[in-house]
Amino acid sequence: MPELHIPDSLVERGAGGKKIILFVLDGLGGLPHPGTGLTELETAQTPNLDALAERSSLGMLTPVSPGIAPGSGPGHLSLFGYDPLRFVIGRGALSALGVGFDLRAGDLAARLNLATLDGDGRILDRRAGRPSDAEGRRIVEKARTALVPPEGIEVFLQHEKEHRAVLILRGPGLEAELGDTDPQETGVPPLPVKALAPGSERSASLMQGVLDQILEILADEEVVNGILARGFAAYEGYPSFHERYGLNALAIAQYPMYRGVARLVGMDVKDIPGNPSELVELLRKHYQDYDFFFLHFKYTDSRGEDGDFEAKMRAIESVDDLIPGILEVEPEVLVITGDHSTPATFKAHSWHSVPVLLASPWARPTGTAFGESECRRGDLGTFEGKHLMTLALAHAGRLAKFGA
Amino acid sequence: MPELHIPDSLVERGAGGKKIILFVLDGLGGLPHPGTGLTELETAQTPNLDALAERSSLGMLTPVSPGIAPGSGPGHLSLFGYDPLRFVIGRGALSALGVGFDLRAGDLAARLNLATLDGDGRILDRRAGRPSDAEGRRIVEKARTALVPPEGIEVFLQHEKEHRAVLILRGPGLEAELGDTDPQETGVPPLPVKALAPGSERSASLMQGVLDQILEILADEEVVNGILARGFAAYEGYPSFHERYGLNALAIAQYPMYRGVARLVGMDVKDIPGNPSELVELLRKHYQDYDFFFLHFKYTDSRGEDGDFEAKMRAIESVDDLIPGILEVEPEVLVITGDHSTPATFKAHSWHSVPVLLASPWARPTGTAFGESECRRGDLGTFEGKHLMTLALAHAGRLAKFGA
Repeated sequence: MPELHIPDSLVERGAGGKKIILFVLDGLGGLPHPGTGLTELETAQTPNLDALAERSSLGMLTPVSPGIAPGSGPGHLSLFGYDPLRFVIGRGALSALGVGFDLRAGDLAARLNLATLDGDGRILDRRAGRPSDAEGRRIVEKARTALVPPEGIEVFLQHEKEHRAVLILRGPGLEAELGDTDPQETGVPPLPVKALAPGSERSASLMQGVLDQILEILADEEVVNGILARGFAAYEGYPSFHERYGLNALAIAQYPMYRGVARLVGMDVKDIPGNPSELVELLRKHYQDYDFFFLHFKYTDSRGEDGDFEAKMRAIESVDDLIPGILEVEPEVLVITGDHSTPATFKAHSWHSVPVLLASPWARPTGTAFGESECRRGDLGTFEGKHLMTLALAHAGRLAKFGA
Repeated sequence: MPELHIPDSLVERGAGGKKIILFVLDGLGGLPHPGTGLTELETAQTPNLDALAERSSLGMLTPVSPGIAPGSGPGHLSLFGYDPLRFVIGRGALSALGVGFDLRAGDLAARLNLATLDGDGRILDRRAGRPSDAEGRRIVEKARTALVPPEGIEVFLQHEKEHRAVLILRGPGLEAELGDTDPQETGVPPLPVKALAPGSERSASLMQGVLDQILEILADEEVVNGILARGFAAYEGYPSFHERYGLNALAIAQYPMYRGVARLVGMDVKDIPGNPSELVELLRKHYQDYDFFFLHFKYTDSRGEDGDFEAKMRAIESVDDLIPGILEVEPEVLVITGDHSTPATFKAHSWHSVPVLLASPWARPTGTAFGESECRRGDLGTFEGKHLMTLALAHAGRLAKFGA
């Protein structure tokens, strides 16, 4: 189990520490608009964030390490202080989190593609012609209800989107060193599940049995009559936020993926059922019950991926409107940042550093606005994401002096 | 074999990535002129570099780690993404590269000092009175032609400069755990070659045989009648640029040392036969045949070591004149930096950070000139040299997203 990157003994787990709010604006970082030279965050009208910046330490955060564009899983693990280069998270496990599955230590997860096979069992289409969500759901439901789990094993099968689904096996002694059955090409049959390490043979045979059953169940389907598995991953269980930091943590997030990552580190989770602004009410409602709050806002990333500079800017402005409500609970430490950049001009997650704002009585303010330019000149410099939690703990009076 | 500091699976080795030029101005970083407070780079008139800086991400690069002044070998390995604290390169191997020797995996290299012994074989002068280059060359040539290699072993003996030479043994099963024969003092005889690890005994005895032969050959010399060996190093072979990054790389460099380091990581190499400006023609000529170009310019370092502020400044200005020619090939990613600082006031390699400029469509420009002050305020912050290649790969579209 990877350890904390600071001496564990420094963490003061007892009472007396202050509360911390970490507000993640997904994909916050941007690139300059060609016309103005200003990023989305710099262009947005954000009077509340700017006022907060005036009394905050500012900096730039490198999500993982320079040049790495992280996915949501590694991006958030980094913000939570779990170095994602050491806490590796498999694709299957991430997919399970993405559909809101309650992954537990020891679970063996795989990504599934619904596929089309010809009469001889050779792959015609690795994505079964990209079925609609409704059709994908129907197929997965059909397989799920007919499937007979191997003895002593629980099997979970969940549809994700279009041709994608997730398969999880739960039971004692499952190993993930298994080769993909997806050969990544057409005209050949799916590969058998191969044990890649001694000790994985039993898992390979259990998994093969489940996949064979699904094939049989789908045999009468016209199009979606095959299944391909890849990205086998055993979720090992991470040390929880409470174990590591002594923090009772609550995640408030609208999308299952982010509640999933939060659950990985032992946070309680709350869904935001309607408008994103409801996160403020949820925060207020639960503020007395927790020490740490992870608030997640998705649309900065979505609009960046759309390549819509204006819309990402407006998403940021809508977050600015939430700030007064958040400040009403009077958090001692409030951190606002992103898990990575999603510049509208780049239309994807990127490796660029991300602005950070850390408001606390012990801040070293340097700027008058929240944006890349001001943060670049900030007191925190440019630092790796895994250090963010340590900084927050320090500001909250939750880290002891190191050495005498 | 040390691994890449990022997951190897992120590197997209297939076609479709953009080309990268890495232009290294050796010893680029400087210290302020006492009269003006400006460094060599800040003082130089560099209209082309400044125009490039306006559309580049800027930053400061720590060659190895703070406080470490690297030699040319580690300095360049770092820029190439081979962490020099893990890819350790022995002095013998570096000397072999310095004389342009084509070092191969398994070669055992040592640095030699020509020395003067007294009648009883005790060391009178560890540097044989610093012979002229011509005299040093004569002695080494005499030894080289008379030497009979041990069976199954090739022996290469090359003069370096003054009293320094390089000895390389090539053959199966050579081990480098050998103690120096140079006792680092006078009045005592050279030490015998001692095996420092079980398994090195055969190499020790082969090496001793070769050194004994050289002693015998030089016995009739008046001054240079002895030889001392140190820095035994077996070159293990590094994973190549192509293996690591999927890049077909070409080095264009005037000095053998830099072509040597480039060959270590599997680059093809081209000499610059005459004026440094010929590197532009060579770049143009070979631009279609490679994905990555390492261009090396030496004189910024040489003039810094001379302690000549003005001359280093003029060397930088002569590089500025090459920029338009380089831009004519329209590189998608162009990185300009140094392998370390050689401030004219310091007259030696130093540990100070080095300005970096990275021009690409995905840059985050912040400045109007290429110099220490502007780079310090740049978007890349201050980062370790080993991350430079990762950044360049990201900008060239050659790194996949990390995790989902």
